[in-house]
Amino acid sequence: MRTTLWLAAGLFLAGPLAAEPYSEEDLAIARELRESALAGDGGYEIVAELTTDIGPRLAGSEADARAVEWAVALFEEMGFDRVWTEPATFPTWHRGLERTEVVSPAHHELVTLALGFSPATPKGGIEAEVVMFDDLAALEAADPAEVADRIVFIRNRMERTRTGAGYGRAVGARSVGSRVAAEKGALALVIRSIGTSNNRFAHTGMQRFDSDVRMLPAVAISNPDADLLERLMAGDEPVRIQVEVDAETVEAYTSQNVFAEITGSEMPEEIVAIGAHLDSWDVGTGAIDDGAGVAIVTEAARLIKALDRRPDRSIRIILFAAEEIGLWGGRAWANAREDEIERYQLVAESDFGAGRIYAISARVKDEAWPVIAAIQDELAPLGIEIGDRGGNGGPDFYPAAALGVAAVDLRQDGTEYFDYHHTVNDTLDKIEPDALAQNAAAYAVLAWLGAQAPMDFGSGETILAEEAQREASAD
Amino acid sequence: MRTTLWLAAGLFLAGPLAAEPYSEEDLAIARELRESALAGDGGYEIVAELTTDIGPRLAGSEADARAVEWAVALFEEMGFDRVWTEPATFPTWHRGLERTEVVSPAHHELVTLALGFSPATPKGGIEAEVVMFDDLAALEAADPAEVADRIVFIRNRMERTRTGAGYGRAVGARSVGSRVAAEKGALALVIRSIGTSNNRFAHTGMQRFDSDVRMLPAVAISNPDADLLERLMAGDEPVRIQVEVDAETVEAYTSQNVFAEITGSEMPEEIVAIGAHLDSWDVGTGAIDDGAGVAIVTEAARLIKALDRRPDRSIRIILFAAEEIGLWGGRAWANAREDEIERYQLVAESDFGAGRIYAISARVKDEAWPVIAAIQDELAPLGIEIGDRGGNGGPDFYPAAALGVAAVDLRQDGTEYFDYHHTVNDTLDKIEPDALAQNAAAYAVLAWLGAQAPMDFGSGETILAEEAQREASAD
Ligand SMILES: [Zn+2]
Ligand SMILES: [Zn+2]
Ligand SMILES: [Zn+2]
Ligand SMILES: [Zn+2]
Repeated sequence: MRTTLWLAAGLFLAGPLAAEPYSEEDLAIARELRESALAGDGGYEIVAELTTDIGPRLAGSEADARAVEWAVALFEEMGFDRVWTEPATFPTWHRGLERTEVVSPAHHELVTLALGFSPATPKGGIEAEVVMFDDLAALEAADPAEVADRIVFIRNRMERTRTGAGYGRAVGARSVGSRVAAEKGALALVIRSIGTSNNRFAHTGMQRFDSDVRMLPAVAISNPDADLLERLMAGDEPVRIQVEVDAETVEAYTSQNVFAEITGSEMPEEIVAIGAHLDSWDVGTGAIDDGAGVAIVTEAARLIKALDRRPDRSIRIILFAAEEIGLWGGRAWANAREDEIERYQLVAESDFGAGRIYAISARVKDEAWPVIAAIQDELAPLGIEIGDRGGNGGPDFYPAAALGVAAVDLRQDGTEYFDYHHTVNDTLDKIEPDALAQNAAAYAVLAWLGAQAPMDFGSGETILAEEAQREASAD
Repeated sequence: MRTTLWLAAGLFLAGPLAAEPYSEEDLAIARELRESALAGDGGYEIVAELTTDIGPRLAGSEADARAVEWAVALFEEMGFDRVWTEPATFPTWHRGLERTEVVSPAHHELVTLALGFSPATPKGGIEAEVVMFDDLAALEAADPAEVADRIVFIRNRMERTRTGAGYGRAVGARSVGSRVAAEKGALALVIRSIGTSNNRFAHTGMQRFDSDVRMLPAVAISNPDADLLERLMAGDEPVRIQVEVDAETVEAYTSQNVFAEITGSEMPEEIVAIGAHLDSWDVGTGAIDDGAGVAIVTEAARLIKALDRRPDRSIRIILFAAEEIGLWGGRAWANAREDEIERYQLVAESDFGAGRIYAISARVKDEAWPVIAAIQDELAPLGIEIGDRGGNGGPDFYPAAALGVAAVDLRQDGTEYFDYHHTVNDTLDKIEPDALAQNAAAYAVLAWLGAQAPMDFGSGETILAEEAQREASAD
């Protein structure tokens, strides 16, 4: 309802300004960028190198440090005007052994990954009878007597959608299942993987982590293994399983957000920031999550850098640290910019794989929406439609949202993203080079036209004030 | 060339007999069987039970023994006229740890499965520089100086085809790669998995095994990991890997072929034998290989048993032991039948997954080919065409081939079979219930009409004599 209202407002405001926000020269350059990105394979080379020379790079691991070095060296080699890092400090976690075995009425080893920040079990594991719930809500509603001294199995299956909305609906089982089960006296948590593939991969990911809340050892099993467990549960005999996790939480590690800048010629203090996260889960090689994003934004900036002129505003690449385990790089970035968020013309992160972009959404001041529409005109040949006014810029920019940052979402087709995401199967071959090039083209056009825009997009007080007004009139 | 000749001969001979080999009643029953199989889900229930209650069942394992008990109990419960077992003794092998790690120029853990009968490495593994070959032929042609003291990597990729022919072309790297590499002084063998999927699963399988030939520790890595290794090999730096295998070969274990019989009313000593293998690899749950086959032939026989009349000839189910590790059940079966192979009207094994059957091929005496054509008429509504005269009955009947056994191949679509075969991903969800029912329908029609045929199909001397004559005239 609210979305529709503001869309209508946007269309109305589009009248006086939509005609010519950009010069012919700026548009010609946008088209040139688009065509060079589509014709090249620079993005694919970047993600091939990251996944081959570095591989998986869990925040806080030795490979994380090597990835930071790799990114700095790459940006320096590309000749950006400034390359630097900024620290981000966070608790981290190391995976060890993880094992789920059905011990009766039949014996099965289930394909398993521990969930982020799972505590360890005693050596040898925990063995108990399984109690199964349809979803988190069913567990929340359960009588503790049903749950106590058992291992909880939440069986909800993620639904496949283009937007990835199925993830949000299913992921609660992972993010808070362990603490809910702990409150009711359970011994461990097993969830059906929050993923769409029937291939036998378990799907890891973050749990909401507060050091003062008790969590249980928690694992995900693959979809076929969850099917098997359901079939066993449908039988007459009680099902007993063993869960063993040997993992370790480490109090504090400092990694780095990595930056590169093309300094603007006219308004160098105003910044278009395009980002991705450099860390990955420790399984797979972090190709679609988020090597693809690293490749997309780096290739987009590289193409702009290669122009024979500078953008009016500055353009920055930000490769965030420690996204997977709690948006720590994004938090550090936002914290350091509390007093200067107005300098950010727009922010946009690529962190949804390598599927084609199909729409542009944006969180900008009302007056700037026609400029977004003009940018979309240049994205249309890439198959990109106008979206809604609701962008948040991507996960690493969530912490900046409260500061009112102007944000653009280039929405990717996520139909297959959750087949690979957070599994050992997230490898380079899952990236379609043409789709990756389409993404780089879109980010190049966005960053360029964002930097050349005839007005600011309202980061900070302007956007917050407009949003507050909408809230008030919607009440 | 030869195939074409015999096809022509078959068509010629078809003239006088093709009209009416079967009575209207026999044909009506064939149609009834076909329709009941398509309407039911008995086959799916069988494979669901086998994969859920027993799971993986490597020949010689404790689960293998449980699978034999399960099959005997199932056949007895189904009320077949006779249920029995016959021993098969074989060397077997147990998988332990298996690990392939790239140690330089980058660190990667590769998804790995040891190959059947791989010897163990020393504890801690073997580390050496990799030498890469395009295929087995390139390794065979290599100068031993290139190979000595290195780890051989054979990179050939299996091609996807409906018939599975790509498997035969690629599998030499697995079956004899280790012994060829050993002769040239290599330390270990790594192969690209002989499978068609880009999902990150390694593919295990048998190596040719003679206790007097030296073999190297040998592993398969998944297709994405083989891609990664190729990318590393394309760099400037030497690539060093570690291979560790902890596995054990066991001299002799005795398992059982499991039989069930519907005793024929007119010619009980003549037998239609439909089979599958009960063992599986130790990864996955042996759903498509060969739980599907077990389900297909059992459901087909169950439907015939449920008729209110007996077939003229006897129909037997044979669930073979130890197919995966060397056709041991098939060998034991053939050895015990050297002097009575003429009693086998036809043999047919289902061991190519659960894809739909698209053709019927047969190795029968010339005079019987029109009867095969008449059977195909009843299979045509299932989408099954007439194939060539070249059936071998399936892997467990290979050892009987030298005895001249009459054999039928119901050829399945294998386009996706090698995506799952011999991987941890061979699980129940990979079976499409409708396709499984089509298979059961075809086996029911085949077994029934085979048992009612107006003539024998020539097992033994007749087939061998005709084949010898063809050989002679083809020279
Ligand atoms: Zn991500
Ligand atoms: Zn992620
Ligand atoms: Zn098989
Ligand atoms: Zn097999």
